Amino acid sequence: MRWLHPENVEDLALGATVLGTGGGGDPYVGKLMALQAIQEHGAVRLLTLDEIGDDELIVPTAIMGAPTVIVEKLPQGDEILRAFHALEAYLGQPIKATMSIEAGGLNSTIPIMVAARLGLPLVDCDGMGRAFPEVQMVTHTLYGIPATPMVLADEKGNSVLINTINNRWAETFARSITVDMGATALQTAYAVNGRQLKEVAIPGTMTLCEEIGRTVRLARVEKRDVVAAVQGITRGARAFHGKVVDVQRRTEGGFARGEAVLEGIEEDAGGRLTLHFQNEHLVARLNGEVVVSVPDLITVLDSDTGEPVTTEGLRYGFRVVVLGIPCTPKWRTPEGLAIVGPRYFGYDIEYQPVEERF
Amino acid sequence: MRWLHPENVEDLALGATVLGTGGGGDPYVGKLMALQAIQEHGAVRLLTLDEIGDDELIVPTAIMGAPTVIVEKLPQGDEILRAFHALEAYLGQPIKATMSIEAGGLNSTIPIMVAARLGLPLVDCDGMGRAFPEVQMVTHTLYGIPATPMVLADEKGNSVLINTINNRWAETFARSITVDMGATALQTAYAVNGRQLKEVAIPGTMTLCEEIGRTVRLARVEKRDVVAAVQGITRGARAFHGKVVDVQRRTEGGFARGEAVLEGIEEDAGGRLTLHFQNEHLVARLNGEVVVSVPDLITVLDSDTGEPVTTEGLRYGFRVVVLGIPCTPKWRTPEGLAIVGPRYFGYDIEYQPVEERF
Repeated sequence: MRWLHPENVEDLALGATVLGTGGGGDPYVGKLMALQAIQEHGAVRLLTLDEIGDDELIVPTAIMGAPTVIVEKLPQGDEILRAFHALEAYLGQPIKATMSIEAGGLNSTIPIMVAARLGLPLVDCDGMGRAFPEVQMVTHTLYGIPATPMVLADEKGNSVLINTINNRWAETFARSITVDMGATALQTAYAVNGRQLKEVAIPGTMTLCEEIGRTVRLARVEKRDVVAAVQGITRGARAFHGKVVDVQRRTEGGFARGEAVLEGIEEDAGGRLTLHFQNEHLVARLNGEVVVSVPDLITVLDSDTGEPVTTEGLRYGFRVVVLGIPCTPKWRTPEGLAIVGPRYFGYDIEYQPVEERF
Repeated sequence: MRWLHPENVEDLALGATVLGTGGGGDPYVGKLMALQAIQEHGAVRLLTLDEIGDDELIVPTAIMGAPTVIVEKLPQGDEILRAFHALEAYLGQPIKATMSIEAGGLNSTIPIMVAARLGLPLVDCDGMGRAFPEVQMVTHTLYGIPATPMVLADEKGNSVLINTINNRWAETFARSITVDMGATALQTAYAVNGRQLKEVAIPGTMTLCEEIGRTVRLARVEKRDVVAAVQGITRGARAFHGKVVDVQRRTEGGFARGEAVLEGIEEDAGGRLTLHFQNEHLVARLNGEVVVSVPDLITVLDSDTGEPVTTEGLRYGFRVVVLGIPCTPKWRTPEGLAIVGPRYFGYDIEYQPVEERF
């Protein structure tokens, strides 16, 4: 057990955005929400998986929707508490801790806010080791853990409780409701007990996020190469160095979809990289050929500051380095690739681990 | 209290289709479902509103969706029982009776099936006195009774429980879920106690349906004018006599929308009537001028047999009489017209009671 204080949250939000691979929400907003809750309610206990009792109930908390809309329609905080209490009442058992379902600027910090406000501990893990756009894309699905009962809530006071025969159906219903709620919704799902969580979760994600953030902060202070520092801690390959020359972005079916085109500069001059995203970056093509794809992480960093850039933050003229970061081994199995591999997203390519390319 | 036996169901299903004003589902399918349940489980008790205890919980059961799809994707029966039990568990109180939320071929008979299978009584009332296409269009809304908690269930085993701040939001979420479920869903909503039901419901709708059906049956046997017999019992005006020359129909946003064009024959030769529908008939225009509109009923009868024709059953060449039937006075108030008047449906016309036109 250790405490998450405001300084931990600063680092954690930045590191989570690196693993958010373009999605998972804006780190600035997420950080403020978590910091405010800690200021009002005190620091948050972060437990390792080992510290969770086998029969204790753990429920992740998250925001669902298009990041393009999330930045304009911020969660108030009360929605997620309402969803949390609704699920707790439905399950008829007290929830002992919350957790992040994915790494990302908002989805790693909303659980901190919930934990602070409810006086609950947070578990040091997540269900992706990164961010993915769809509900069923969590390690829980690999182990047959149902997403439902799931509760979605909006800021107006509406809530919906979903029970489905599989996690793909949970995505279908939840996406429609999210669109109806104004393209964002607060979500509680994937309730598990401690025994299950130890089997399915990716351990240590919160701590990894914090370490990435601290690495960036210290590299800046010590005027070291920030991008190289991020590469060091994430084992990320430098896939491209370029300037953003075009971004096409549309909010469609409850997702932020689009493409960004980068023209190479310095060592990559003459090259052209295209990033395809659905909330998160899915595929990077260099001069037409795929060089990084899901489930590996495609992370865009400002080449000067090392600051991670989310898909909704990409702007013409930004000078960035694109990293390809190896995903957790859980996603590299045939079962994992069936859920989050390039073919699921409609790219007819064979997945090749990023470290085999660079 | 009286018993609904198979012969009552035959009449009731036909009469409900007259009040279904083009929607509410196919009477043949509904009749078979109710008859089979009665055959297996015995006759159903029909209670008057007076016979319901003030604190007894009553929950309507219905099918939601586009009638064009409902005829191709029949409910199995188990979905609605699952929805019913899910709502009962959520409310934490035994449900003492079910009822029809609207009059219509399927929506008057599904509650009979539920009542038979669960050994529950049915209440002799409904929430519209006709059929309407949207969730909030029930007399309960006039009295501030919430539609939610509402449960929707499909034949695959999925279910969704909705809680909303008003009944219009319940429509929004329920419609999206219904579309996701394959354009039809089984629904339980508008749970009320006996005291509330006595205030809000339209009494005697099931008995009225049965009387209309019996009137048609006897008129046929006695070789009387069936259309005139229906007019007599419904106080319906003969708005048009014509032949169907065109039907445009689309399943859109979870509704069956469209227009039917009729060319006048015999006493109406030379005239042209257009029917606009959204599951139910909304507006009838004679040579361009509105002659009947919601909330009054527009009912299409086969001119020879007096058989009511649903919107999805309209075919080129059918010879029909169109009746305009006065709605319940509850819908003619400013509050009622705000919910189900022509302007709500996008027709910029002043509502005029049908009896003032013919």
